[in-house]
Formats: sequence, structure tokens, C-alpha cells
Amino acid sequence: MSKKLTKRSEDYSKWYNELVVKADLAENSGVRGCMVIKPYGYAIWENMQAELDRMFKETGHENAYFPLFVPKSLFEAEEKNAEGFAKECAIVTHYRLKNDPDKEGKLMVDPEAKLEEELIVRPTSEAIIWNTYKNWIQSYRDLPIMINQWANVVRWEMRTRLFLRTAEFLWQEGHTAHATEREAIEEAEQMMHVYAEFAENFMAVPVVKGLKTESERFAGAVETYCIEALMQDGKALQAGTSHFLGQNFAKAFDVKYANKEGKQDYVWATSWGVSTRLMGALIMTHSDDNGLVLPPRLAPIQVVIVPIYKGDEQLDAISERVKPLIKELRAKGISVKFDNRDTHKPGWKFNEYELKGVPVRLAIGKRDMENNTFEVARRDTLEKEIVPADEVVDKIAALLEDIQENIYNNALNYRKEHITKVDTFEDFKEVLEVKGGFVLAHWDGTPETEDKIKELTKATIRCVPLDSQEEAGTCVFSGKPSNRRVLFAKAY
Amino acid sequence: MSKKLTKRSEDYSKWYNELVVKADLAENSGVRGCMVIKPYGYAIWENMQAELDRMFKETGHENAYFPLFVPKSLFEAEEKNAEGFAKECAIVTHYRLKNDPDKEGKLMVDPEAKLEEELIVRPTSEAIIWNTYKNWIQSYRDLPIMINQWANVVRWEMRTRLFLRTAEFLWQEGHTAHATEREAIEEAEQMMHVYAEFAENFMAVPVVKGLKTESERFAGAVETYCIEALMQDGKALQAGTSHFLGQNFAKAFDVKYANKEGKQDYVWATSWGVSTRLMGALIMTHSDDNGLVLPPRLAPIQVVIVPIYKGDEQLDAISERVKPLIKELRAKGISVKFDNRDTHKPGWKFNEYELKGVPVRLAIGKRDMENNTFEVARRDTLEKEIVPADEVVDKIAALLEDIQENIYNNALNYRKEHITKVDTFEDFKEVLEVKGGFVLAHWDGTPETEDKIKELTKATIRCVPLDSQEEAGTCVFSGKPSNRRVLFAKAY
Ligand SMILES: [Zn+2]
Ligand SMILES: [Zn+2]
Repeated sequence: MSKKLTKRSEDYSKWYNELVVKADLAENSGVRGCMVIKPYGYAIWENMQAELDRMFKETGHENAYFPLFVPKSLFEAEEKNAEGFAKECAIVTHYRLKNDPDKEGKLMVDPEAKLEEELIVRPTSEAIIWNTYKNWIQSYRDLPIMINQWANVVRWEMRTRLFLRTAEFLWQEGHTAHATEREAIEEAEQMMHVYAEFAENFMAVPVVKGLKTESERFAGAVETYCIEALMQDGKALQAGTSHFLGQNFAKAFDVKYANKEGKQDYVWATSWGVSTRLMGALIMTHSDDNGLVLPPRLAPIQVVIVPIYKGDEQLDAISERVKPLIKELRAKGISVKFDNRDTHKPGWKFNEYELKGVPVRLAIGKRDMENNTFEVARRDTLEKEIVPADEVVDKIAALLEDIQENIYNNALNYRKEHITKVDTFEDFKEVLEVKGGFVLAHWDGTPETEDKIKELTKATIRCVPLDSQEEAGTCVFSGKPSNRRVLFAKAY
Repeated sequence: MSKKLTKRSEDYSKWYNELVVKADLAENSGVRGCMVIKPYGYAIWENMQAELDRMFKETGHENAYFPLFVPKSLFEAEEKNAEGFAKECAIVTHYRLKNDPDKEGKLMVDPEAKLEEELIVRPTSEAIIWNTYKNWIQSYRDLPIMINQWANVVRWEMRTRLFLRTAEFLWQEGHTAHATEREAIEEAEQMMHVYAEFAENFMAVPVVKGLKTESERFAGAVETYCIEALMQDGKALQAGTSHFLGQNFAKAFDVKYANKEGKQDYVWATSWGVSTRLMGALIMTHSDDNGLVLPPRLAPIQVVIVPIYKGDEQLDAISERVKPLIKELRAKGISVKFDNRDTHKPGWKFNEYELKGVPVRLAIGKRDMENNTFEVARRDTLEKEIVPADEVVDKIAALLEDIQENIYNNALNYRKEHITKVDTFEDFKEVLEVKGGFVLAHWDGTPETEDKIKELTKATIRCVPLDSQEEAGTCVFSGKPSNRRVLFAKAY
């Protein structure tokens, strides 16, 4: 398979699909809509998980595990939530196979092993979790409950794309229970900020924090907070959501607690999640026509060393030279790979690690050995320089910081250039068509206008940004009065 | 709920069930046969995962993720494997719910959304993984493939018990592909040793390593290696298995590679796994009538500090006194909890942490404040002593080591006392009935005898121990010649 990618300018979508496969991140499986996450892609996900998990624990959360299946009667208890997910549920109806009497060596579903009640493969776990919390909560002393789970979920999708939309995906889902409305709202807001911090500081992806409109809200939520990122093709990507669920699930599952005065009240809830979709955001924010560009803080391999040699003797000499360097880098917590495979040429390796987005590449050949130097290349700018051996560790440490910062700034600049204020619907359409990106426009606050705009332009309201200022204006579509601009974009 | 447990001597099985629930490890969920793993139980599992994951990576494995679902046609490709799991498969047949026209607000399976091909919820992933490896392997250069995945699996069980047998459980499954038979066998053996090392050094559970007989082998395996532990009630528990799969899956999925000479051959395979069942082994090996006893190396809380005070002033003084101690312990990598809740009395807390198996408990009251001492209690022996404050850190560090070693030795001594050599079937039955534990006996090597013994005594052959010596004898049941003793036991 050629490692060469379609250029982004030719076909962004094709570029993305090729990149995911060629960089060994993921591929389609033998199961419709489900992906295989390959070791290199999974290693990035593991790094994301480790940072997020640390942040969740630092904010007082614990992990637990709840069942994969949700009995239909529990699933339908919170009506809006059930309605929202009903059309994309995988449903288990039987629990046994038997030999097919008509086909030697084949199996068939045993009609006698039909479940009395169907089981839904969780598309999200509010129902099964609130059915559990019901037994854990009697008094205010049992609150708050602050639990997260790392799990797989299934949402049946007709058109799927690796990482961005798959029938099965991996995610974490936090589910918290609180005595007061204020505490629950603060929790939902806190987790939005945690997600934003993770996106910006680790993924190097700048995000806009905001509130979803009613029609874009999570099914069953009172309020949905989100972080929205902007991809290089001018489309937005929702990177994480945090929901204030009010007392909806507490009422559906009859979860009450006794307060200090002994009075019974329904419990307040939040839920929040990010998924392997973040991989899509990571890839599409930074990568280029040569392949992946990974932020050093999440790269499975931060530094690769490629020896350029003829014969075992030269390789041995190079190996000796790099051994203490590798040790020193690892002692500093920097992950290093020394690729001494003799099955591939240096040029092939250079391309390979460029494709895989390894932040820093060292090369060392005969002349470097003589001069006691390394050739150091950075992945983001593709710049190379010759560095004396005794400076190379400091150089690498500085480069990793610099790359992290540089790709964040590039993404931030791109986003700044692609947030456009518009005041007429003509401009609205033109900006979306020609320039892309986010459009800040006045909206009259009705779902009807929101729908109509979506129908005409494919743009949706990504959020009402948290930092938006009051500003008198008129709706870009209906001309009705508006007191705040909202953020529109075409989105993944 | 009373925290008091049924005594082991009264009803071991009841004691286990109560302990799992009362120590907040897990509970039954609203889904038949599926459990909720609660935060405290999950924290132990996370510690297990972290150590195992490190060991897998140190032996050259990478993590990846494969789909939850297996299409029926792939599932049935390896006939023996399919047959082995067919009777316990959860099967997805539909992908959408719709509003039930007869019942307001209720949902029903949409008959129009029937899948063309049913999907099996993975009971194990050989089929889907070998269908994937097929595309990854062309030449010897693509080998070996050494992949592990952490995942949930479903095996429909009629009689379930928390951790020991549940319809859904969490596990890891390693799946490797090799160019040669020897390499695959070495891998399968290596992973058995890794499991044994983990069980003994971290869980403090001594295990017997061995080979399964044909009838106890994994469906589709050529050889199954296992580690077998012994519980306090004299029953064995299979704690991990590692399978040499020969070329069975390579043939079923047509996975060939070209060797250095360009000749095509089928690939050799292994798979290996441990699951949340290990939690059951951990609990049943060490715990006592007061509750859990956890090995320090896996305990989520290694040290708990309980203040004994009247009024805020005393609590404040104690808090000041323990603050530097907590800091020092954490700097040494020791996990500490200071339980300063004023909602519970010290006596209640003592019982709680005993129930939860926290290895070391510190108490500090008025007299300790005056004398600058702590009361230090160890969970395994329940011994207490007064320790001067300036010696307490060293004391704790030493105790954690000592407890780890002591509970391992206790378990090892119990097992040594409960491996009994027998030479007649009368003795065989009596030992199983009266003393319990492992029985080392001669067996004629036939599945018929194995079956018959199981029918008559409920004992199965746990394994042919790796360290068993050749020894001429006669089968304890049939009287036919045998050249090796095998290990029998009643088992979980
Ligand atoms: Zn532009
Ligand atoms: Zn005994």
C-alpha cells in the first residue's frame, strides 16, 4: 500500500480516511460500522485516558462499572432520553445458538431461547445507573455520588466514519448525584472546564465553551454544556459535552433523599462524556499532507532515532553512541524509539515517522559520528538542524515544549481567522460557503428559525458561547430582535 | 444494613456473598446475571489492571481494541470454538426501537429493523480478531503480532455469582500470531508464568501451574495452560488460562504468511486471559469473618488514620499532627486516607476499615497526642501496638511488606496442607468429602474415567502440574496403568 496521502486541498475527507488507515490508527472491521482501533491509535487513546482519568480523580470522582445491557423497561423510563436513542439501539433478543439442522456445521439462533424482556446494548448509561443509584441513596449523607466509567457504547449509525461516527465507540461517562440544584450545575460546569483544559493543554486543540440550544441538547437534559473545536476544513466538531439533568432521571427512577431536616426531595443529576471521537478532532486539527502531527504530550513515541549506516560495524558504533542518549531521555520521562531494523531503509523510516506524527526525529550517520552531532527534525514545521551531541537532550526537551505550543497557536490562529461576525443572511451563506468556520450571528431564539437555517445552509448552532456579550441586534434570518450572538457552523 | 458477616464455618458461600456486598465491592444489577462493580471494588481491579498491563508491555505486547460484536458467519468459522460457546451467546437481532402503538409511552422492537445477519456479543474474540489479522499478515516480516485488549465479554450463565460467574465480565484477552509452532508455544507458556507471577507477587495467591486435560481445554485450543488457586473452603479456582491454538484459527480464517524462502504456511496462534474472576480469588483466599483482607500491593487504601477526639479543637490538633505524616507516607508512594468525618464514630470506622480490608490502621487520641504516639493495627493478624511518632513511617513501610508476605505464606501453608496424595478411590472420595483441597492421584488418561469421576465426586482434573514427576502407578478409578499423578479438586 502506498503511504502517499491525497492532499487536503484536493479532498479533505479522503485525506482523513486515508490518514487514519495509513498511519495505523484504525480501520473498518468485519462488523458493519464498527472499527478496529490499532495499537498505534490505541496508544494515543491510552495517553488521553490517563490524563483525563487523573483530572477526574483530582476533581473527586471515582471509577466504577455498570452493565452493558439495559432492560427495555428501564430504558424507556425516562421518556425523552429513550425517545432520543430509540432509533439507534442494538437489541439483544436471544441468549443461545443451536446447530442449524438444514446446514451442516452452521449455527442458528435458537428460537426457544428468546428473552422475556429485550436488552438494549447501552447507547448511554443514565437508565441503568439511576436504577442503581436508587438503592444507594437514602439521605443527604449519601450525596454527592461522583462516579465515572470507562466503557464501550453502541449507537446504530447508518453512515459511519472512523473515530468520528461509529456504531460502537469507546468513551467515559460521568454520572453524578447531588442534594442541590446549584451543586449539580456547578459540577456540570466544572466538567466542561475540565474537558476544555484537557483539549487545550494536552490535545493542543483550542475550544469554544458554551451552552447548547434546546434542539441540540442531550435527550433528557435540562442544559447541555459543550466544547466546540474547529477543524482545518472549516467544519466544527463537538469535542465533549456535560449535561445538567435536573431531576429528570431522579423522577423517572424515583430517587429521593432525606435532607438534614428529614424532608424528602428528588436528587439532582449530571452526566458528561468524551469519546474516541476526540481522536478525530486530534487528527483533523493538526495533521498535514505528509501525515499526522501529534502534540508531544499525547504522542506514544516522542522521539525516534534513525541510524544511517552501511554494515553491522557502523550500526554497532551508532548503537553505542545513542545508548546513553536514550537512557538520559527516558530518565527525563521522554519516550524514545531507536529504530534499528535492517528491513527498512532510512528514507522509508523518515516517511513512516512523518506519517505517524512523531514530534522529533533524530538521524545519525557517518558524518554525525565523526562530528559528534545529530540531525534533529521537528515534525510540525519539518525544519531540520545539526545539533552537537552534548546539546541534544536540552534541544529535544525544548523542542517538545515548543511543538506543543506551536501547534496550539497555529490552531488558535486558524480559529481566530475563522470566526466571522455577519449581520445579513446573504453574508451568512457566503461565509459558510466560501470561507467556512464559525459564524457569529444574531438569532431570534426559536427552534423554527434554527431548523430553517439548518435546512437552507446545513449550519447548526454549535453553542451560545459562555463569553458572549449582550448585544442588541436582529436575527440574521427572521429579522426579529435578538440580544446575543450565537455560534453557527457546519459540523461533523 | 448490618455490617456483621455470616461466619465462614457456618456457611462459606453466604459469607462470600455478604462480604462482596457489604465491603462495597459489587452488587447484582437490574439486569439478570450482570453485576455493578462499585468504586471500592473497581479500584482494586484498576490496581490489578495496572500491574498486569505493565507486565504485558514489558513482555512486548501492545494494546488495541476490536469490536464487541461478531457476525454469526465469522463466529461459526472455527467450529470447535463456536460449538463451545454457542449455548451461552447473547444475540443482537434488531437495530431499532419504535413507539408501541398499543402502549402509550412504551417502546417495542421495530420488526422492520431486523439485521440480515445476527451479531453475537463477543464471548471471546478469536473469531473477530483472526478475521482482522488475516489482512495484517502477508509475510514473516509482519510477525509476530502481540496484541492484548481490555474489554467486556458476555457469556450467558444461568446460575451466577458476583465476580465468580457473571453474564457480563471484564477481562483482558491477549491474541498473538507467530511464524513458528515453537514460538507460539513459548508465548503461551510465558503468559502462564506472567499470570503466576502476578497472582503470587501481587495478589499473594499461590498457584499451581499446569496443563488442562483435553476435556477441560478451551474450545478451539490445542493445549491450555492454567494457573489454579485453592480457596479457604477447599475448592479450587482457575485463575488464568493461556492457550496454544496451533493453526486452528489460521486455517479457519485462511491466514497464511510467506516465510523467508517465500513458502506459504499457516500462522501459529495463542490467546490468554484473566478476568474480574480474579477478584473472587483474591477475596476468598485471604479474607476472614471480620471482612476483607487485602494484599498491600493491591489495596486502594494502604493506611487509614482514624482520629479519636471530642470537639473541633481536639480534631484540629490531631489534624495538625497527622498532616506531615500523611505527606511523608505519600512521598513514599503509600496511599493514605485520613478519615476525619464527624458523621461516624471511631468504633464504626474501625469496623468499616476492617470490613474493607485496609492493611494498616492508625488511631490517634488524646493520650497518643500527649505521648506523641500512634496506635498501629494490622489487618491480617488484628494485632495492635503503640508506636512512637518518629518511628511510625518505618513501622508502616515494614508492616506493608510483612502483611504481603504473611498472607501469602498463610495461603501457601493452607495449600500445602491441602494437597493430598491418594491411591484408592475410597480415600479419594473421603479426602474430597472430609478434608477438601487438591487431590493428587493417578489417572488412566481417558476422558471416560475423568467423566465418571466427575459424575461420582464432582471433582474435575484441575491440571497436570508442570512440576509433576513421572511415577508408575495405577488409576485410582479404573486400576489401569498411569505414569503420572494429576491434580483433582472440586472447583468454582
Ligand atoms: Zn481559511
Ligand atoms: Zn482443612
